[in-house]
Amino acid sequence: MTNLWFTEKWSKDTRFSIKVKTHLYSEKTPFQQIDFFNSEEYGNFFTLDGFIMVTEKDEFIYHDMITHVPMGTNPKIKKVLVIGAGDGGTVRELTKYDHIEKIDMVEIDERVVLLCEKYLPITACKLRDKRVNLYFQDGLEFVKDSKEIYDLIIVDSTDPISVGEGLFTENFYKNCFRILSEEGILVNQHESPFYENFKVEMVKAHQKLKNIFPIATVYQIHQPTYASGHWMLGFASKKYDPILNHNPEQWESLNIKTKYYNSNIHKGAFALPNYVLDILNK
Amino acid sequence: MTNLWFTEKWSKDTRFSIKVKTHLYSEKTPFQQIDFFNSEEYGNFFTLDGFIMVTEKDEFIYHDMITHVPMGTNPKIKKVLVIGAGDGGTVRELTKYDHIEKIDMVEIDERVVLLCEKYLPITACKLRDKRVNLYFQDGLEFVKDSKEIYDLIIVDSTDPISVGEGLFTENFYKNCFRILSEEGILVNQHESPFYENFKVEMVKAHQKLKNIFPIATVYQIHQPTYASGHWMLGFASKKYDPILNHNPEQWESLNIKTKYYNSNIHKGAFALPNYVLDILNK
Repeated sequence: MTNLWFTEKWSKDTRFSIKVKTHLYSEKTPFQQIDFFNSEEYGNFFTLDGFIMVTEKDEFIYHDMITHVPMGTNPKIKKVLVIGAGDGGTVRELTKYDHIEKIDMVEIDERVVLLCEKYLPITACKLRDKRVNLYFQDGLEFVKDSKEIYDLIIVDSTDPISVGEGLFTENFYKNCFRILSEEGILVNQHESPFYENFKVEMVKAHQKLKNIFPIATVYQIHQPTYASGHWMLGFASKKYDPILNHNPEQWESLNIKTKYYNSNIHKGAFALPNYVLDILNK
Repeated sequence: MTNLWFTEKWSKDTRFSIKVKTHLYSEKTPFQQIDFFNSEEYGNFFTLDGFIMVTEKDEFIYHDMITHVPMGTNPKIKKVLVIGAGDGGTVRELTKYDHIEKIDMVEIDERVVLLCEKYLPITACKLRDKRVNLYFQDGLEFVKDSKEIYDLIIVDSTDPISVGEGLFTENFYKNCFRILSEEGILVNQHESPFYENFKVEMVKAHQKLKNIFPIATVYQIHQPTYASGHWMLGFASKKYDPILNHNPEQWESLNIKTKYYNSNIHKGAFALPNYVLDILNK
């Protein structure tokens, strides 16, 4: 039996390793290094520039929480802009809502989408839904030029140390604000509080969002294959409060099947430990 | 520079590794293999039979949550039994409450206590508090023979696959029930839902507690150095509900300093994801 391990650097002195059965595919695109693997315990998984993006075993956690928290805050969301998210998991969750009319998805690297359709159909299965429009371009440019108005923007990006860098700038957030409706919500991948390398990026992202949006906070998920397992998502909006505006009965009446998200965890996820509140100056 | 790594097996195909500066100490006692390490990122940390128990970097999370959740549920707790917990972190948190009169701590392996006093004074600093009585014996035997009545029992044990095995039996839980007051609470280390090896033990522990206690549930913490980072603690009691009986103002009036625990997270920690509810048949 091949003794093959994928190892990710989680912090200066921490490593996380998964035993791999097959290295399915490898490609260097103009944007990043893409690799797909198969493992017995995690199923298929893929990495960008050596960082795990999605594993079949735990992708439901991230995709539930980046999607259903905003959808459970404003049940009238009809037009959604998704930035990044090439694996398709976020779009898959959004298509569960019949009342969503339009999903524009902007992914810089078309190869991610095409390869996920081949190796990760579990997440990429709804990218050809008729409400979905795929744009293969830079999200930063897209929001700068957009004349559209959205109810929700989901920024499902890589880390700011990679091709995702532009999606963590004040300029980007300002343009998001501009193209959001008066009831608009932005949710984004927001790094992590535990390891120094992610913590500094988390703090910067939060400060920028707080400077632009009247409401800006973060919520947490248990994501075992992301560094420390304690991962953050950002919630920013023009008027909706994620706790006060969540109506459990209303969301439950939609009968949407989820493996992680529910009304209790919608609220519980915003209960931050003291050390995170301190870091964020909250 | 020495390229030395401590590596822990988190599941069949998952490994977690910390870069080590010095292997401070190693000893095989009649009960287990004990090792202390020093690392730049985690400070000192120690392992039992190759599993991380405590690191200076994240011990505050576990010790806050195993202690302040029951203390924040019943503010009248005066007599506490702690089983395991040789590192002293749980006792350190308990001694912050002036109204606690007595803490009996039962640790099977005296060497753990003595070595933690040497290498981990950050957790072991209150073991000689005058309210603390140390018993170096098997917790299973202690509760069987005890004539004492406690308001709170904290089972801060290793995993059931090791010397901690007896502390996961129905017989043990029954004796805990017997020596708890009518307002008694039991909190225990409760494994994890994500990896199969821990999941089966979590389910068994919960079923047993549910058979004995009128109220039995679990709550979750973000513990980066435990497998998956998604760790569980069990809460069982004769009449106190951890949510309904938590009074934020009352707890806050005690002015106890915590780095993880607060009233929001007291409640938020009990908000379980659907897949965990399913596993536990809740």
